[in-house]
Amino acid sequence: MAALAFELQHTDNNSKARAGKMTTDHGEILTPIFMPVGTAGSVKAVNQQQLERDIKAQIILGNTYHLYLRPGTNILEEAGGLHKFNGWNRPILTDSGGYQVFSLAENRKLKEEGALFQSHIDGSRHLFTPENVMDIQRSIGADIVMAFDECTPYPCEYAYAKKSMELTHRWLDRGFKHFYDTPDKYGYSQNLFPIVQGSIYKDLRVASCEYIASKGAVGNAIGGLSVGEPEEMMYEFTELCCGHLPSEKPRYLMGVGTPWNILECISLGIDMFDCVMPTRNGRNGMLFTSKGVINIRNKKWATDFTPIDDGIDCETSNYYTKAYLRHLFVANEILALELASLQNLTFYLWLVGEARKHIIAGDFRAWKNGMVLRLKQRL
Amino acid sequence: MAALAFELQHTDNNSKARAGKMTTDHGEILTPIFMPVGTAGSVKAVNQQQLERDIKAQIILGNTYHLYLRPGTNILEEAGGLHKFNGWNRPILTDSGGYQVFSLAENRKLKEEGALFQSHIDGSRHLFTPENVMDIQRSIGADIVMAFDECTPYPCEYAYAKKSMELTHRWLDRGFKHFYDTPDKYGYSQNLFPIVQGSIYKDLRVASCEYIASKGAVGNAIGGLSVGEPEEMMYEFTELCCGHLPSEKPRYLMGVGTPWNILECISLGIDMFDCVMPTRNGRNGMLFTSKGVINIRNKKWATDFTPIDDGIDCETSNYYTKAYLRHLFVANEILALELASLQNLTFYLWLVGEARKHIIAGDFRAWKNGMVLRLKQRL
Repeated sequence: MAALAFELQHTDNNSKARAGKMTTDHGEILTPIFMPVGTAGSVKAVNQQQLERDIKAQIILGNTYHLYLRPGTNILEEAGGLHKFNGWNRPILTDSGGYQVFSLAENRKLKEEGALFQSHIDGSRHLFTPENVMDIQRSIGADIVMAFDECTPYPCEYAYAKKSMELTHRWLDRGFKHFYDTPDKYGYSQNLFPIVQGSIYKDLRVASCEYIASKGAVGNAIGGLSVGEPEEMMYEFTELCCGHLPSEKPRYLMGVGTPWNILECISLGIDMFDCVMPTRNGRNGMLFTSKGVINIRNKKWATDFTPIDDGIDCETSNYYTKAYLRHLFVANEILALELASLQNLTFYLWLVGEARKHIIAGDFRAWKNGMVLRLKQRL
Repeated sequence: MAALAFELQHTDNNSKARAGKMTTDHGEILTPIFMPVGTAGSVKAVNQQQLERDIKAQIILGNTYHLYLRPGTNILEEAGGLHKFNGWNRPILTDSGGYQVFSLAENRKLKEEGALFQSHIDGSRHLFTPENVMDIQRSIGADIVMAFDECTPYPCEYAYAKKSMELTHRWLDRGFKHFYDTPDKYGYSQNLFPIVQGSIYKDLRVASCEYIASKGAVGNAIGGLSVGEPEEMMYEFTELCCGHLPSEKPRYLMGVGTPWNILECISLGIDMFDCVMPTRNGRNGMLFTSKGVINIRNKKWATDFTPIDDGIDCETSNYYTKAYLRHLFVANEILALELASLQNLTFYLWLVGEARKHIIAGDFRAWKNGMVLRLKQRL
């Protein structure tokens, strides 16, 4: 078992885009990478064979908040960790639960000690602390563990953003200490990433980046963006943070975003992404394709017998037609959710794979500019 | 294009069980066979690749009532039929819509001409007649088309059962005439099966069988059973009907049933089955396995890390554990519906395949008696 390693393989001359390779005890991850979100141990509406063979996912996410409540750490420990429990044998990253406590839980209360909340499932009371969230993620068996933070909303006043960032930094110290005081749970390396906060205040973001960088973690994350601020502001702060985080470590932009968001942020120096958009929007009939965006419920697709997307290497999307998928949505068939999720995730993984090829080929910037225009089109 | 052919390959010495081969223009079907139900052009929660590769389905059903309302015959004709529309290239059988009109539609009214009803989707008014139901099934492109009938409920008074059976017979004459007055729609052979009715009255059932047999169809169906009558009565009438339907033609028992129902009815001379039970009960967490019945929501499975079913050749059921599947159900994950449907359908197809092997091997009866006991067990 060896700590996560990151090899920077290529840096683009005309942008900040990078191609790299992360090595974990569950295998390699070629960056830039998109990580499908498997909230409760399942990437919604697709199975693990599809994730590996069709979508070609290299790493998936789990949500600490959800997995802690259901099935709970006792069952996960008895299974030997989430990889054994759900049969996904490649790397897993877990968030810290902080974001979900504030977006899902009831009667949450923030204290210096941690966050008190009631389960959205049964109202039971729980406390997340920077320490026990490390224990939970160790029990889940994540290859990459995220620090416990407060993700400030947008907009957020300067005073609150500063106070919150300072709390996140104190929590980081506690979490780091606890994490390194405890052993890897299942014989493979678990690795902690700290999270930059600071809302949309440059001095706070720079201060947070420097604090986070000082921890010398094997990778660093940027949180608190894509929470409602204008897209340009998200890019501005992503660029700022990338400039103040070490270049030899992977940079993970949490919760971003649309296909064009991802291309722009790759261009700014981001290596890792996650977002529920491809699965959630897919379940609502919004398809991201290599030719643009499709609302598959629209009447115009009713007799379009062309493949869902023939521009990507996806057996399913090459096989089934837009007309059939529209029918499945209109008729409320479960298969609609699977086909749309498969399309969107396979497209996202295809997109970051293409980005990587163009970074290595040296024509990333021109390719990216063309793709952003193409992918934004409403078909 | 050649009409459906049936070759009786083996008849069991110790029961009425038969092994046969049906040949259609979309391929062969080895009997006895179970046909997964794909109501609206999709076998719920599984895709067509899974149907072919994992479940090993040889023929699937479509429902005329549903497909007529959505997507409608115009779209299906423009696609070139249901096979082209949904990408299932093997045989398809469609029911006649009669059963759904009486179980799903609103304000239905039976007349000599046909059945008036309002759509359960939008309340629109429609008329199904023995003739237009042939047209609709031709447009869907079914390899096997079912006659329009009235399926009597249980219990049903003799007078009504007789009157209804006579109507079904008159409808059959009209349907047959219309069917043979119209050409195959898409260049491959479409074949009409008539349906025996007569509720639970022996004289009616015998009369109906004789009338149906007199049509000389390439296959014959038994309807109006498994509608609430005791299991023993269903077996009794299945045996009676099999005795009065030609042995050189396939016999299809509509809407049956549990795994043990299927084994018992194979033993009585049935060749073809369909039922929503494996998919519908699967979606409710009831698993049929090679070792017995499982309610996967039960707490007892929470830490059972053995495969869902290692007694059948199903990659998915061999791979995922009972504990994981239980978690998916408890957490309301969509993947639960897929894994349970895959298990139940693969098991049903495995079961009829095993029955066939044992019929050919000559030990069907002893094997069947043991399996019925085993499969009924609640685990």
